[in-house]
Amino acid sequence: MARPTLKDVAAAAGVSVSTASRALADNPVIAAGTRQRVRARARELNYLPNAQARALRSARTGILGLTIPSLVNPFFATMAHAIQQASARRGFSTIISSTSEDPAQLTRSLDTLAAQQVDGILAVPYSGSDDTFSRLTMPVVLVDRELPDTGLPTVASDPAPGMEAAVDHLLDRGHRHLGYLSGPMSTSTGVRRLAAFEAACGRWGVEKQEVYHGGFDRSDGHQGTLDLLDRGVEAIIAGDTMMSVGALEACHARRVKIGRELALIGFDDNPTMRLQATPVSVIDQNVEDLGTRALNLLLDLVSGTSPPTSISTPTTLIIRPSSNFTRRR
Amino acid sequence: MARPTLKDVAAAAGVSVSTASRALADNPVIAAGTRQRVRARARELNYLPNAQARALRSARTGILGLTIPSLVNPFFATMAHAIQQASARRGFSTIISSTSEDPAQLTRSLDTLAAQQVDGILAVPYSGSDDTFSRLTMPVVLVDRELPDTGLPTVASDPAPGMEAAVDHLLDRGHRHLGYLSGPMSTSTGVRRLAAFEAACGRWGVEKQEVYHGGFDRSDGHQGTLDLLDRGVEAIIAGDTMMSVGALEACHARRVKIGRELALIGFDDNPTMRLQATPVSVIDQNVEDLGTRALNLLLDLVSGTSPPTSISTPTTLIIRPSSNFTRRR
Repeated sequence: MARPTLKDVAAAAGVSVSTASRALADNPVIAAGTRQRVRARARELNYLPNAQARALRSARTGILGLTIPSLVNPFFATMAHAIQQASARRGFSTIISSTSEDPAQLTRSLDTLAAQQVDGILAVPYSGSDDTFSRLTMPVVLVDRELPDTGLPTVASDPAPGMEAAVDHLLDRGHRHLGYLSGPMSTSTGVRRLAAFEAACGRWGVEKQEVYHGGFDRSDGHQGTLDLLDRGVEAIIAGDTMMSVGALEACHARRVKIGRELALIGFDDNPTMRLQATPVSVIDQNVEDLGTRALNLLLDLVSGTSPPTSISTPTTLIIRPSSNFTRRR
Repeated sequence: MARPTLKDVAAAAGVSVSTASRALADNPVIAAGTRQRVRARARELNYLPNAQARALRSARTGILGLTIPSLVNPFFATMAHAIQQASARRGFSTIISSTSEDPAQLTRSLDTLAAQQVDGILAVPYSGSDDTFSRLTMPVVLVDRELPDTGLPTVASDPAPGMEAAVDHLLDRGHRHLGYLSGPMSTSTGVRRLAAFEAACGRWGVEKQEVYHGGFDRSDGHQGTLDLLDRGVEAIIAGDTMMSVGALEACHARRVKIGRELALIGFDDNPTMRLQATPVSVIDQNVEDLGTRALNLLLDLVSGTSPPTSISTPTTLIIRPSSNFTRRR
């Protein structure tokens, strides 16, 4: 297919060529809605203005860097896959570096990617890693976790809608004593999800709630579930993928009947949650969408077609038999 | 810690400094066993001969490239994780590229890694990709899948021991009509595992056997399982991680009682297989060991301390309730 021209973009957006040109230059003479529409069409068509196309051909490597906390966590593996696929569709290669959930390795990962002169970086950060990012000279977009003080554009999900629906659903089914497996406070996701759980409990008037604090790790989910069960909870919400897997492990090990004795809601959808004799309800982030949006935002920054802006995506509750039973009193 | 010297290596190996020096130079005057022992101690101590250390400091990037077929396949995600961890311990960074199970993307992945001037490449190839590899100038080690015509050193598991144990175990429990979910013939693993299944059936005198041919994909495992069930099999062995997950999906969807009506044996161990109400038996490759051995072999080639040599690791059978029941006639 021939490379799309400005004329193609104008036709697709239903505007004149001069309007399209000024819209892509972000000229305030053009209505904001029109600028947005033209940019959207340009993106869909993979349109590159000539100057940008030249710059891309000359100085750029066509490679994007991605650093994630873990390869064995299906959430990040699926995110990396979605980013790699979307990136290939836009004509860029992706190289991936993992920090193995070790905050100290993030600096090393970023240095490695920067040394490769990648055109842009997508990163899942840790709290306190602000300085590491200030040294980077290429466009950076944060995914999943935030670093508010850096001002870096971020694509992250909002845990509140999914968490509110989860707590509402549990109360509706008669589960009154709720437990939450909380992730580490060194991540914005750990902090925001715990706050969302506590806000939802307050909002819906939960009488008894328990929190177990741990890391985003199977062993923490396992230990935390045993601990919450000992405290007599009737329902457990897990704070991430790995803690959800750990919660399942603990229930299987202790022969707790999920969906009859205990209501369980995991975080993030994946085959392990679906492929149970009693499939497990989850608070879902739509990780493919999260990854694709982050990639599109980064490419907008690389090509200069969009100013830095953060994106928040909603979470949703997927109800399955693990929690969808009524507790009789 | 100070950088280890030749003296440290000699002391660790219990030989004189001059013997250690000649052993590392692979001088045939020194007994093969001694050469091997000295090299092993040198590797454990991360010893680099001075000339090599200089070369590493000057011309090398300290970065290794890894290309895998899929990030969402837990087998390759775990392999990448093991390689990345072992690599970090040896002072190297790793960048990872995925081909999303598209053979055409392998060339692109390798070009991307080569353009980054990585010191060496670990790759999971496809049949017919020989030419792509012949263009590379840095050391290359193949992992999991082989390309015999290239002569490239390969670290792969031998499916025969695990497959023989699986077929023997199924017959021992009274399952006579066996089905096999075979992966694609465009991969050496697909070819070798099917051959191992057929050899094991021949060796143990299986009366009725059925084979379904598909890709290393969940949907193929799902479809193939329904097909084999329709053909009346009493037991199914799946040919890889993703087909195993698909087999589970199909059994859950059709409410087949695994461990009572059907004996199921998956390929590769992972949480989805373990975390079932009826945990699933698997033919295990010990993927961490596979990845670590490949990384060590690549670093030996990069530093010139070892000639190219291929390594075959055994598979084993892990018996769990999914197959460990006696079929009454």
